[in-house]
Amino acid sequence: MYSDTEREKSCGAVIWRVTPWGHEYLLIQHRRHWSFPKGHVEGAETEKATALREVKEETGLDVALDGRFRKIVSYQTQKGNMKDVVFFIATPIGGVERPQLEEINDLKWFTFRKALPRVTFETDNAVLCAAEKYIHAHNRKFIHGTSDEGKPMIPYSDIVDELKKRGIQKTAVQLPEGLKRFTPELCRVLKENGISCIISGDPCWGACDLSLDVAVDAGFLVHVGHTPVTKEENVLYIPYRRDISSAVLEKAAETLKVFKSVSVTTTIQHSHQIEAIAESLKALGVHAVIGRGSPRTPEPGQVLGCTYASAKNAGCDANLFIGTGVFHAIGVSLATKKPTYALDPYGSGDLQEVSADPFLRKRFVQIEKAKKANSFGILLSSKSGQARRDLAERLAGLHENAAVILIREISEMQLRNLGFDAYVNTACPRLALDDQSRFPCPLLSPAEFEIVLGIRSWDDYEIDEII
Amino acid sequence: MYSDTEREKSCGAVIWRVTPWGHEYLLIQHRRHWSFPKGHVEGAETEKATALREVKEETGLDVALDGRFRKIVSYQTQKGNMKDVVFFIATPIGGVERPQLEEINDLKWFTFRKALPRVTFETDNAVLCAAEKYIHAHNRKFIHGTSDEGKPMIPYSDIVDELKKRGIQKTAVQLPEGLKRFTPELCRVLKENGISCIISGDPCWGACDLSLDVAVDAGFLVHVGHTPVTKEENVLYIPYRRDISSAVLEKAAETLKVFKSVSVTTTIQHSHQIEAIAESLKALGVHAVIGRGSPRTPEPGQVLGCTYASAKNAGCDANLFIGTGVFHAIGVSLATKKPTYALDPYGSGDLQEVSADPFLRKRFVQIEKAKKANSFGILLSSKSGQARRDLAERLAGLHENAAVILIREISEMQLRNLGFDAYVNTACPRLALDDQSRFPCPLLSPAEFEIVLGIRSWDDYEIDEII
Repeated sequence: MYSDTEREKSCGAVIWRVTPWGHEYLLIQHRRHWSFPKGHVEGAETEKATALREVKEETGLDVALDGRFRKIVSYQTQKGNMKDVVFFIATPIGGVERPQLEEINDLKWFTFRKALPRVTFETDNAVLCAAEKYIHAHNRKFIHGTSDEGKPMIPYSDIVDELKKRGIQKTAVQLPEGLKRFTPELCRVLKENGISCIISGDPCWGACDLSLDVAVDAGFLVHVGHTPVTKEENVLYIPYRRDISSAVLEKAAETLKVFKSVSVTTTIQHSHQIEAIAESLKALGVHAVIGRGSPRTPEPGQVLGCTYASAKNAGCDANLFIGTGVFHAIGVSLATKKPTYALDPYGSGDLQEVSADPFLRKRFVQIEKAKKANSFGILLSSKSGQARRDLAERLAGLHENAAVILIREISEMQLRNLGFDAYVNTACPRLALDDQSRFPCPLLSPAEFEIVLGIRSWDDYEIDEII
Repeated sequence: MYSDTEREKSCGAVIWRVTPWGHEYLLIQHRRHWSFPKGHVEGAETEKATALREVKEETGLDVALDGRFRKIVSYQTQKGNMKDVVFFIATPIGGVERPQLEEINDLKWFTFRKALPRVTFETDNAVLCAAEKYIHAHNRKFIHGTSDEGKPMIPYSDIVDELKKRGIQKTAVQLPEGLKRFTPELCRVLKENGISCIISGDPCWGACDLSLDVAVDAGFLVHVGHTPVTKEENVLYIPYRRDISSAVLEKAAETLKVFKSVSVTTTIQHSHQIEAIAESLKALGVHAVIGRGSPRTPEPGQVLGCTYASAKNAGCDANLFIGTGVFHAIGVSLATKKPTYALDPYGSGDLQEVSADPFLRKRFVQIEKAKKANSFGILLSSKSGQARRDLAERLAGLHENAAVILIREISEMQLRNLGFDAYVNTACPRLALDDQSRFPCPLLSPAEFEIVLGIRSWDDYEIDEII
C-alpha cells in the first residue's frame, strides 16, 4: 500500500539516569506533546549517529547509547506516510541540559511512575515500558557501580592500596560529573580503611579542572577519570577505562585501507587499548600509526577537546578517531586538514566521515554577529589547567572596550549578567566551539576574535588548542 | 448581577529585565497558556504582598515591585464569577529562576516582539502593551544606569576619586548579580581615568562572596553593593544605597505604637537612613530602638540573611523590618521570638505581620525526610565569608556516613551528582532556609541535622546564623 520512498525513518533515544532516590527518564515537550528526543536520518547516517545527533540537538546532552536495546515503533504520519522510529537506550555523559529553542518547549526528568501518564502517544508508552523492563534487567553498572562483567566502575581497592603504599591517611577526592554519584561509596571504602577524606563538590569535567583548593586542604588529592594536564604534586590520577572489542574494527578497515597511512586516536577511556587496536587494524590491512601525545595528553594516540597533538604528530593521510560523538573527530579534522573518520566503539562498526563545514558555517555566523559588538569580555579561567593569562591579556589589548574577566564556571547566566556584547574564550576551547547554542551572544575563540578585528583572514581559521 | 462575595481578586506582576540586546519579559506557562505570574489574595494580604508571594512561588525569583504601575484587568472565570487581576511591574533582585513544579510547566524570557504573540489571553496582551509603554517612559534606571532623580546607580566618579586618592593604578572589580550589567561601563570609566582593571566574573550575592582570587591578582579590589563581612585589606567597599520616603511610615506607626519598644532593622540598601527613620517613628509615637550590629553587619540596625544581631541586641517587645520580601523579617522573628512586622519601603505603607509557622512546617517535613537518609554530605563553602570549617567537621563527626564537601556554588545539579541522600549546609544559611524547593533532597541547617540525629529537640529549633 505504501511505496518504499514514502516510508520515513527516525531514530532517537530513551535517556535515563540514576539518582539517589531511584532512576529517572528524560522527556521533551514538542509543541504540546511529551515524548523522547528523535529525528530523521540524514543522508548516509547510521541509526546511532542519528540518535546521538538528535539527542544533542534537542537536549544539549552528550549520551552513551546502549545499542543492545533497539526498539522499533511504526505509525502513520499526518501526511499519510508510514514512519518507523528506532529507539535506543542512553545515559548522559556530558553536555549541558537545555531544550533546543526552535523545536522544544521544555525538557524534564520524571520517574517511571510519573513519566508514563505524561507521555502523549501510545507507541511511546510501549517504548517506555520496554525500557523500564530492560533497565531493571541490565542496571548493574549504574545502580551497583559495577560493569556488565561485574568489575566496579571505580577501582576502589586499587585506590586504597596505592594510598596505603604512600602512607596517606587523609586525602581529598574529586570525581568528574559523570562518576560523581560514586563519591559516597568511595568515602565509605576509604573510611573503612582508616583513610579520612574531604570531597571536592564543584563541577569537574577534566584534569584541567583540578580542585587544588581541596588538595591543599587535605595534603593529597585522588582525582578520578583523567590523566594529568598540568604538573602537580601529591595527586593520584585514576583514569577511567572502558574496554572495547576489536570486532568493531572490521568494517572500518575496508574503508581505511585505501589510505597510505591512518592516524589512530581516542580519548582516555580507551587509550590503554590503542596499541592492540593498531595491531588489529594492521592485521586487517590498514597502515595504522599512533602519534605521540603532548604534555596534556601523555598517552600515545590520546586526544582531548583542547589538544590534537597526537593526530598532528602522526602526520598521516587520514585519521581514525575512536569514541562516541563527533566533536573530537571534527577537532582532529580541523587540526590536521585531512580526511577524518569517527568510529563509535559501541556501535555497529559503521565509519562516519566527519566534515567540519557545518561547524565552520555556524562559527562564521557568530563572527559576523560579533562584528557589531561594541564591548568584548575576555574570559580568563581560574581553573588550574585552563588559565591562559598571557593570551587573555594580549587579546584584551587588541580592542578599546575589551577587558579581562577572571571566571570559574562559564554559564549563560554569568555572560548575560556581565553585560558585554560579545565574549572571547581563553578557557576550555570546547565551550566556544561546542556549546555556543546555550550562550546569549557570540563566544569567540582567540583566532575568531582576530578575524572579527580584521587582523586575521578567514582563510587562516584554526581550531583553538591549549598546547 | 454579581454579588461582592463572588468577585475574585488576584495580584501579579509583569517581570522584566535589561539585557545587552534590549529588554525582556518573563512569561510562565500554566497548563497550556502563557501568561504572567499571579494568584489569589490570601487573608488580609496587601496587593503587593500577594504579588511578591506569587512571583516567588511560581518563578523562584525575588523581585522589586514598581508600584507606580498598577493595571487592573477584569474578566469572567469559567465558574461564572467576575475576577479582577491587579498587575504591577517588577524586576528580579534575587532568588533562582525555577518554575513551581505543581503549577507551572515552563518559564521563559521573551523580547516584547516575541512575547506579544506568545501571550494567550487578550487581557494579558493589554497589560503587556501598557507595561512596554511604561518601561519606555521610565527606564532611565535600568537602561541608562541612573536613578529616577538622574543619579547614577553606580557612583562611578566616587570610585575613581577614591582610587586616585589611594594611588591605585590597577584594580579588580566585583559587582553583585543585580548590578553586574554595569561592569562594562565601570571598566570604561576606570580606563578613561588611567586605571586598568580585571573583572570578577563568578556569581556574587554578598560580601561573603569576595573574589579574593581576582583581588590577589590585581593587588586591589573594588567590591560594589555591600559592607564588609570579613576583615580584608586592600578592598574598597561601595555599598548600594537607595533612599526611601518617610511618608511610608505613617500607617505603620498606628500599629507599632501599642508596643513598649520596637526594634528597627533594614538591609544595607537603606541602613544609611535608619537614624532618620527612627526619628520619624518617634515623632509618630513609636518607641523605636536601633540595635547595634555585629562584625558582619557593621551598620546600626543592619541585618543580613545570616545575621540578626541588631534585632536581638535591641531587646524590644516587637520588631519592624523595612525592606522587600519577608525572608529577613521571618529571620528576625525566629531570632527574637517576638512579634515582627515587615514594611515594604516602596509599598502603600501597609504593615505585614510575619509568622514563622508556615516556614517551620516546611522545615519539619524536610527533617522527617532526612531521618530516612543513609548518607549525609556536609557542605563547607570555599567562599571567604561563608567557610565554617570547625562546624562542618564537628557535624561530619556525628554520623558514620557523613563526609565534608568543599564547594563554591551550591546548585541542584551538584547535589544530584554528588549522590548523598541528604545534605547539611554550613555555607550561606539562606540556601537551606529559602531555596529548599529547588533542591532534590533535604538540605538541612546545622540545628536541623542535630534534630534528625536525635541530639537536639524540635523545641530547641533555632535559625542558623553566622556570628
